[in-house]
Amino acid sequence: MSSLMPCGCGGIDVHAHVVPENFPTYMGRMVPADWPSMAPAQPCHRSVMIAGKNYRTVSDKCWDVAKRLQDLPAMGLDMQVVSPMPELLSYWMAPEDAQQLLRFLNEQIAAMAAESGGRLLGLGAVPLQDVDLAIRELEYVVKELGFPGVEIGSNINGAPVGAPAFDAFFEACEELGAAVFVHAIRPAGMERLVGPAPLQQVLGYPSDVGLAAASVITSNLLVRRPQLRIAFSHGGGTLASLLPRLQQGWGVFPALREAVQQAPTEQARRLFYDTLVFDAPTLRHLVNVFGETQLMVGTDYPFNFHDHTPVQRIETAGFDAGMTASITRQNAERFLGLPKKVSSV
Amino acid sequence: MSSLMPCGCGGIDVHAHVVPENFPTYMGRMVPADWPSMAPAQPCHRSVMIAGKNYRTVSDKCWDVAKRLQDLPAMGLDMQVVSPMPELLSYWMAPEDAQQLLRFLNEQIAAMAAESGGRLLGLGAVPLQDVDLAIRELEYVVKELGFPGVEIGSNINGAPVGAPAFDAFFEACEELGAAVFVHAIRPAGMERLVGPAPLQQVLGYPSDVGLAAASVITSNLLVRRPQLRIAFSHGGGTLASLLPRLQQGWGVFPALREAVQQAPTEQARRLFYDTLVFDAPTLRHLVNVFGETQLMVGTDYPFNFHDHTPVQRIETAGFDAGMTASITRQNAERFLGLPKKVSSV
Repeated sequence: MSSLMPCGCGGIDVHAHVVPENFPTYMGRMVPADWPSMAPAQPCHRSVMIAGKNYRTVSDKCWDVAKRLQDLPAMGLDMQVVSPMPELLSYWMAPEDAQQLLRFLNEQIAAMAAESGGRLLGLGAVPLQDVDLAIRELEYVVKELGFPGVEIGSNINGAPVGAPAFDAFFEACEELGAAVFVHAIRPAGMERLVGPAPLQQVLGYPSDVGLAAASVITSNLLVRRPQLRIAFSHGGGTLASLLPRLQQGWGVFPALREAVQQAPTEQARRLFYDTLVFDAPTLRHLVNVFGETQLMVGTDYPFNFHDHTPVQRIETAGFDAGMTASITRQNAERFLGLPKKVSSV
Repeated sequence: MSSLMPCGCGGIDVHAHVVPENFPTYMGRMVPADWPSMAPAQPCHRSVMIAGKNYRTVSDKCWDVAKRLQDLPAMGLDMQVVSPMPELLSYWMAPEDAQQLLRFLNEQIAAMAAESGGRLLGLGAVPLQDVDLAIRELEYVVKELGFPGVEIGSNINGAPVGAPAFDAFFEACEELGAAVFVHAIRPAGMERLVGPAPLQQVLGYPSDVGLAAASVITSNLLVRRPQLRIAFSHGGGTLASLLPRLQQGWGVFPALREAVQQAPTEQARRLFYDTLVFDAPTLRHLVNVFGETQLMVGTDYPFNFHDHTPVQRIETAGFDAGMTASITRQNAERFLGLPKKVSSV
């Protein structure tokens, strides 16, 4: 296994996904309508069936550790942090049913991490529709499975991550030192899209992530939980566009000034974001807005719509060597709470 | 009146609003519940009452032409294009009721423009919940009142401006040479906001405008109507954040490639946007993304949340003289279809 050990010289991808090869048989009284299952597809692929429909046909790289590790070097990656395909987070199921599915996913992810020789790390899933149950699963994935943190949705059945209902959960994350990666899920604004189904991912996802990040700012989550490490997918989505207006509005509207305890632009520079924006000028803009210490590689590997050249894009974006090292690796180490690698050169 | 004539040397603000001093008495069978009226407020202010509630308390600069003209020079402005406060667009009323209110607004705006000695231009309002009626009102404001165009909402009762339902309207705009200014209204994603009411304007508005602009791109509006001049408020809202992902998705998803007939980034560079983003780095980013030919001054004057230094912000953002002239004035002339001023120097 030693040849698989991370060398400490490549990038760390914090945004990559897992789908298990098979879903478990439901153990309970009545199978939920949206309990997932697998159906055959073209070679090396399977189709995730949800509620009788093909939700997505995915490649075996979703569960095959060897194939995944083989792909990392070409992407400039040394390590990858893997989390469930967001639709599997199952916030819409009864909490106990969701917990059953998520526990299975967490164990699968733990097995993949164990098989990887240290190159894959897991982010767990928790049933946030029941905060108490979510905290128990959080403790399990951190204490028992050794995960550095969890993935959560940008909204939980419509409530954005900044909603007060989730406060106890974030308190537990802070106490456990668990990193929180917020990923877009079932976005708002679907009725504003004109065009084919992929627009949900293409336009809806970043819009929902932007509003989720804004909700964390307007609810003062990091003021209340200063040690919490929380990151947002897709470069924070639309937050970079929203932030100057939020900052200005904070100065203009007394109700907003009273509600938001720290300048939005300052709070935004304490959140983490991935680099998954597919565009070097946008990346440079994000570094200006959020700070070079807050961005981390994200790819959405191995889905079709993933960034094939995440590290190359950063290396050729015009950052200096120190910034490049921060963005490709060191910020992720800090977000994940990993011990820093000491170069052996 | 000659001292009021525009000198051709200052900026043109395409995004400023009108509220009339009084609302008309409803002439019909049953007063709509949301027919607006005025209530007294502090000196020089009145409160717009809608459905029994104070929608907004506004300054008399909303209707007082002399006060408005007095404020223009300090903002670096020579001319201002005025349009109704968006909530007055009344898409949710019965079409004939809305048309009654909008006709009154259009006449008020025409009177303000006439009083201004050429320094104010009007954008009319049309009842887009009934496309035929909207086209008739469009013809009225262009042919009878001499307006350069109209203001429309980012969505019409939930349908974004790119929805096929509005195609005949945009065809008429193209034929009449009418400029279309798209302003945020009753935004999607309200359930994602955590905090006080102004967040609707602060976060909801730009999110809705971004999705509206994206809907124009994904529905190929400018491919079908190549002569249409259409602009988006608040710097296009979140579009700048959405666009690189839309471009990448267009290259990845066959359904999207098939549906969208021209590259999203190219289409985006044919839309117009105002500069109302309150931030010079964001302004520079928008110029990079959309092109120096597509941005125009916008202020939201005279509402509380308006840009007091719109031209100064552009002049100090680091653009060269030609770009500054384009953004402060020439792009607006092109958008509005105005004859170019020849400098008398």
